[in-house]
Amino acid sequence: MIASEVRALFAVASRPEIVSLAGGMPAVDALPMDAVAATVAEVVTLRGAVALQYGSAQGDPGLRARICDVMALEGITDAHPDHVVVTAGSQQALDLLTRVFINPGDVVLTEGPTYVTAINTFAAYQARIVHVPLDTEGLSPAGLAETLARLAAAGVQVKMLYTVPTFQNPGGVTLSAARRAEVVEICRRAGVLVVEDNPYGLLAFDGEPVRAMRADAPDDVVYLGSFSKTLAPGMRVGWALAPPAVTARLVLAAESAVLSQSMFTQLAVDRYLETQPWAQQLKGLRELYRERRDAMLDALAETMPDGASWTRPDGGFFVWLTLPDGVDTKAMLPRAIAARVAYVPGIGFYADGSGRQAMRLSYCYPPPDRVRDGVGRLARVVRAELELRDTFRT
Amino acid sequence: MIASEVRALFAVASRPEIVSLAGGMPAVDALPMDAVAATVAEVVTLRGAVALQYGSAQGDPGLRARICDVMALEGITDAHPDHVVVTAGSQQALDLLTRVFINPGDVVLTEGPTYVTAINTFAAYQARIVHVPLDTEGLSPAGLAETLARLAAAGVQVKMLYTVPTFQNPGGVTLSAARRAEVVEICRRAGVLVVEDNPYGLLAFDGEPVRAMRADAPDDVVYLGSFSKTLAPGMRVGWALAPPAVTARLVLAAESAVLSQSMFTQLAVDRYLETQPWAQQLKGLRELYRERRDAMLDALAETMPDGASWTRPDGGFFVWLTLPDGVDTKAMLPRAIAARVAYVPGIGFYADGSGRQAMRLSYCYPPPDRVRDGVGRLARVVRAELELRDTFRT
Repeated sequence: MIASEVRALFAVASRPEIVSLAGGMPAVDALPMDAVAATVAEVVTLRGAVALQYGSAQGDPGLRARICDVMALEGITDAHPDHVVVTAGSQQALDLLTRVFINPGDVVLTEGPTYVTAINTFAAYQARIVHVPLDTEGLSPAGLAETLARLAAAGVQVKMLYTVPTFQNPGGVTLSAARRAEVVEICRRAGVLVVEDNPYGLLAFDGEPVRAMRADAPDDVVYLGSFSKTLAPGMRVGWALAPPAVTARLVLAAESAVLSQSMFTQLAVDRYLETQPWAQQLKGLRELYRERRDAMLDALAETMPDGASWTRPDGGFFVWLTLPDGVDTKAMLPRAIAARVAYVPGIGFYADGSGRQAMRLSYCYPPPDRVRDGVGRLARVVRAELELRDTFRT
Repeated sequence: MIASEVRALFAVASRPEIVSLAGGMPAVDALPMDAVAATVAEVVTLRGAVALQYGSAQGDPGLRARICDVMALEGITDAHPDHVVVTAGSQQALDLLTRVFINPGDVVLTEGPTYVTAINTFAAYQARIVHVPLDTEGLSPAGLAETLARLAAAGVQVKMLYTVPTFQNPGGVTLSAARRAEVVEICRRAGVLVVEDNPYGLLAFDGEPVRAMRADAPDDVVYLGSFSKTLAPGMRVGWALAPPAVTARLVLAAESAVLSQSMFTQLAVDRYLETQPWAQQLKGLRELYRERRDAMLDALAETMPDGASWTRPDGGFFVWLTLPDGVDTKAMLPRAIAARVAYVPGIGFYADGSGRQAMRLSYCYPPPDRVRDGVGRLARVVRAELELRDTFRT
């Protein structure tokens, strides 16, 4: 799917009569708005001359220290603020990394399926994307080794593995602990940089954060983090934690890209985390998303026809649904919209045209009853689609 | 000068005992902090669910409409919000434009001297920068035509003219009205896109905004604007106004670079302009900067030795000072710092090593008496440097 198609889809999906299982928007209305309003006002009152001025391209030192504390929750205990670069969401960190490392024609490995905007970013720098298979335990180490061997035999140098190991977007699966070490080791031997994109890591439904890949591999992994899912995407505050040599190049790239990040939003996030019960609020968010996940899994089990299968996420925002043979989810989308439910067709998450039988379902934004309604509507569309298929088969 | 040298300079220049005539930081302490604090709190209270959520890559439609009103002050009366792309400062607009238009080896024309971070951005995309001479009336049309002819004869295709026509950074000069039409016409005939970077346009000391080049050439000029100098750089809100085909490509590039701009800072700027007496505050800013400009010009006239010359800006932040023969402003800088005054050596504003005899002086940030002290200190350093020169000559 091209970007304009995705945009058109989201425009349609935002109509009130449609249950959107398409977008990945966090539930920002769960935030205590009074506390946020007080925080942003205090930042101006107390530190206006700093908050409203230019800052450094690397980001505010106080926020970078706090980000190290946040990453410690995921087992990263050796991070130093000097090696953190604050970015406009983790998307900008990915863009700057790609700018620094990728030349036209270079190969980037990603999970198949993978995050749609990462595909756009790699394509913008004319990288060649090669997918590595994903199963319910995440990225397949065997698949990774095979892919690397095949590319090496063809004389192709691989620069980077881009992975969302925890509550993957769009797969909803998590790379198992055993596989994490294996994936890092395979990449280390092949000289491939691992980029661990982890926006959902603190949204584990059992409350125990998954240990980051970066925690055990400081020299081999660039970690990308974000406050977009744990606080508010409207602030555009994310970051990269990288080995020193990479950090220096990211800072130069950031300076050339935006001169400096917004000091105002950086200080707002920093002060919010300092003064508000953020850990408690995160717990509330986990419960909210767990309830919506449960609603989706229950509704899928109740309504989907035989032959459909789906993932069971332990955190994050997404379920990956695979339909029975012979259904094309992109072709089906207009009929789903007519039935007042929206999703993103699987083909959008691959660079190679795969995914026609699958779709991403997001449970993050609609309340549980809307999630149930949406899945019910979707199931009726799928059943009608299967009847049509069977009619034409006979 | 390389980026790390400039950063080291600014780090030194920020020490309290040093008068910094180096940085281009606006006087944000002149803002009514209570009003800013109230505005940002209201944005959360009234529109939190929008302000804290993801937005579009093109930017908030309401802010884009307001930006069109702002540009009307400079004679741009036909701008449509659909052709505005909101960016993280105009720096990001320049970065995205370069990404969209420039391939490695392409030639970009700029004034010589030109804005230092534009040099970095063009260099990051491996553009070749060719300078066009500048005099007290701005970019020389004759020089532009000659440069284009010379490059055409050498078979070199020029992609873009990057210009800061109004209160130029670092030159402090303004392209005359007669020259504006001439420059656009020369570029049109040569198939060269004009990029008009105009962060200082509303800071004219006589109060009359200079008519933008874009006002009379909607198809040939991409206009870059910013609230960094007229409100606060800490918000990182700038924009590009471009012909439709360019706009579409900028939006795609923005999506790949940052997914969406901060809705929070966009709505904050929009509401501030809606509810506060911004036009009146701009008048106050113009008076504040005019007083500092006067202090600098007076002090230069009183203290500089024969053979020094400088520009007389009618707005903006900068004076360009050229010293007598035989003085190297980069070599002199450590002695200036020892004398507790800082500036940016002229060589930083050229891609070709020119500017050794010149420097940029900023009067925007220190109050008038500090500006006078700084120029006095600088003049003593220059006189000592000339004595040294004369001693070695004899």
